[in-house]
Amino acid sequence: MNAIIISIGDELILGQTVDTNAAWLSQQLSSLGITVREHITVGDDINAIVGQLRRAGGMPSALNNDAVEVVLVTGGLGPTDDDLTRHALAKVLETELKLHQPSLGRIEQFFVRLNKPMSQTNHVQAMIPCGCDVLENNVGTAPGITTQIGKTPVFFLPGVPAEMKVMFDESVKDKLRQKVSAGGAEKVCAYRTLHTYGAGESSIAEMLGDMMSRGRNPVVNCTAAHSIVSIRIISRGPDEKTARVLIEPVERELRKRLGTFIFGSDEDTLAGVVGGLLRRNGSTVAVAESCTGGLLAKELTDISGSSSYFMAGWVTYSNDAKVRFLQVNPEILERYGAVSEQVACELARNACRESQTDYALSITGIAGPTGGIAGPTGGAEGKPVGLVYIGLADRGGVEVVRNVFPGGRDCVRRRAVYSALNILRLKLL
Amino acid sequence: MNAIIISIGDELILGQTVDTNAAWLSQQLSSLGITVREHITVGDDINAIVGQLRRAGGMPSALNNDAVEVVLVTGGLGPTDDDLTRHALAKVLETELKLHQPSLGRIEQFFVRLNKPMSQTNHVQAMIPCGCDVLENNVGTAPGITTQIGKTPVFFLPGVPAEMKVMFDESVKDKLRQKVSAGGAEKVCAYRTLHTYGAGESSIAEMLGDMMSRGRNPVVNCTAAHSIVSIRIISRGPDEKTARVLIEPVERELRKRLGTFIFGSDEDTLAGVVGGLLRRNGSTVAVAESCTGGLLAKELTDISGSSSYFMAGWVTYSNDAKVRFLQVNPEILERYGAVSEQVACELARNACRESQTDYALSITGIAGPTGGIAGPTGGAEGKPVGLVYIGLADRGGVEVVRNVFPGGRDCVRRRAVYSALNILRLKLL
Repeated sequence: MNAIIISIGDELILGQTVDTNAAWLSQQLSSLGITVREHITVGDDINAIVGQLRRAGGMPSALNNDAVEVVLVTGGLGPTDDDLTRHALAKVLETELKLHQPSLGRIEQFFVRLNKPMSQTNHVQAMIPCGCDVLENNVGTAPGITTQIGKTPVFFLPGVPAEMKVMFDESVKDKLRQKVSAGGAEKVCAYRTLHTYGAGESSIAEMLGDMMSRGRNPVVNCTAAHSIVSIRIISRGPDEKTARVLIEPVERELRKRLGTFIFGSDEDTLAGVVGGLLRRNGSTVAVAESCTGGLLAKELTDISGSSSYFMAGWVTYSNDAKVRFLQVNPEILERYGAVSEQVACELARNACRESQTDYALSITGIAGPTGGIAGPTGGAEGKPVGLVYIGLADRGGVEVVRNVFPGGRDCVRRRAVYSALNILRLKLL
Repeated sequence: MNAIIISIGDELILGQTVDTNAAWLSQQLSSLGITVREHITVGDDINAIVGQLRRAGGMPSALNNDAVEVVLVTGGLGPTDDDLTRHALAKVLETELKLHQPSLGRIEQFFVRLNKPMSQTNHVQAMIPCGCDVLENNVGTAPGITTQIGKTPVFFLPGVPAEMKVMFDESVKDKLRQKVSAGGAEKVCAYRTLHTYGAGESSIAEMLGDMMSRGRNPVVNCTAAHSIVSIRIISRGPDEKTARVLIEPVERELRKRLGTFIFGSDEDTLAGVVGGLLRRNGSTVAVAESCTGGLLAKELTDISGSSSYFMAGWVTYSNDAKVRFLQVNPEILERYGAVSEQVACELARNACRESQTDYALSITGIAGPTGGIAGPTGGAEGKPVGLVYIGLADRGGVEVVRNVFPGGRDCVRRRAVYSALNILRLKLL
């Protein structure tokens, strides 16, 4: 079963709002076993909306002959002049808008509950093209609409994510589930994502070999973001349980091939995994940061409950702060520079000693200017932008790793933080 | 001038990743005066990609007769088997992929800089359809591609947002600007965004009154994110200069009505504006954070060149760290708790004294658990989740402000940081 998702709104097409509805609906549809073919976004323009509805409904101007079996549309059901979805639908169906009395009653009730006067403009939200059915909105004012265009069922939902989600769950999901099971042989998807650190996308692909070939079931693919490569296993089966079972041997094989490159799965983050290991070991950590300016501490404390293992952080941005708050030897600073193995070593060792923690991480480097092109800020003394030393101290001693990270300021800072977290993770394993 | 943006990737069509590229590119295009007609997303499916490229290029299967004058495509340029954009393009152009030696050299250099072996799979990223031009990638491995399909110029950019943005800025923006100025009679948009802190969206709407009515030129609208309300002025005119001139009286009126609520415009951030004020005054700052865990330091050091005014930060997460590194009186901690006016006061005063800076900010509060529902983490002693004290010390003394911020852990932390930055901004004005 194939689907198309259409999002409507000037704010989307102008880029002022990122469309999260299409992604959310896609997840819902694929977990029902429906394949989403396309997302389409158009502005609040009646001709553009009409064009897309006709195309999706399989009318003569359609792009190709792949039958689309369901269309979900979000947006353009609000009360203002630029909300044109219901007018576009009436035009496609060659019919008129007509007041739907029960919907008007519900909208009036909505304002009574809010203890606010209803504006005259909300009337239009109860206007529905003749012959269409209404989907009740229990969260906001805009009712949804469902009908067929040609032979294709189409569901119109509000653009406000909170209203859209409730309406989908209450009024659309079960109808789609019935269609899918009536379809018989159709397939349900199950997912598993494994997150890795330490190997590039292409090395991962080499290690996986033909596991990533297309057309298999499950399919395995990967995406990269700031040196974290995430591997997704997607299986299809007649029902969710069967699909889940198909994932297991593939996951086992991936774990065998990738070993400790894998740090977590699904919703896990590197900082969350490191936090879990610290907690399990009953260990504590402190950090001393220069170029990352607090980002490492921020990532570690993003985790609720991190106060049980995260004790303290220093952002020793100036040389003076390094000397005064973490006792870096001024002679070493002078001789080797702030971005050096020696300074990373002192920062980690002294942070560990001062905070009396089991571990301390240090980061000192040249994040460079915003935007990513080497310029006057950073990168002096023959040291390139992206050069970062990361230290890890425990009671036994200190190790320091040298890196040169690619990318702009933000990218170098993120990569340095992930690298530091991963060094601690490997230590804790 | 009309544009279409095509995003490619199974992770998008499955809803596992939200497409932020299309929104970012839309903003860039509309500020150049180019009207984005549609966003289209398809999966890693060669037939789907070929279909969309043919359609966008105005070939016979096109949906409608509106000429599309430029197409931007993101994604599918990675090194793995599911990266099919370059193959789809070769098919549309009825040509072959050919090794582009300079690109291969750049990819090899990229791995040399990273001090990592290059994988054999990266070779494919240097394969370019014959007759196409290459867009250099200075941040990652995938070169971009530009060509014409039919008469329509098409630009292919990587899907990784950081790489895509740099490539757009370096290699696409100027080419588009030239096309627009050659285009003549089209309506050009000009934009101005004013960012405010300290007044809610509805208060701003009240202060603006009918300035926000639709159908005006310029149009004024606003969006809110973590208590920063941004007001956008969008004007249209026959050329950029005329459109810009229309903005001026509206901006003056907004500045008159909103005064110091406005902290900056366009690309300005609160941390950047505060940094600019510190630099102008020749002042320095230090921070002492508890619940925000490094986020305040991170925001201040996001700014390239911040080392001239940001001296040091302490993340005194544990009570012990507060006492040992910033000399908070243990009796005060005991009597009032870590989340108290008194502790915020000590943290700010002592950070200022220790770092010998002109100003020091402190934050102590209850960020609460992830997800936003009050639970066992935080929120004890009758102190609600979201309670945050912010201190500002200078050589004259300390002031502390009490807040209760709404939302989940991430939201409370962000709002606390913005509030602290704004307190310092108002002090520096």
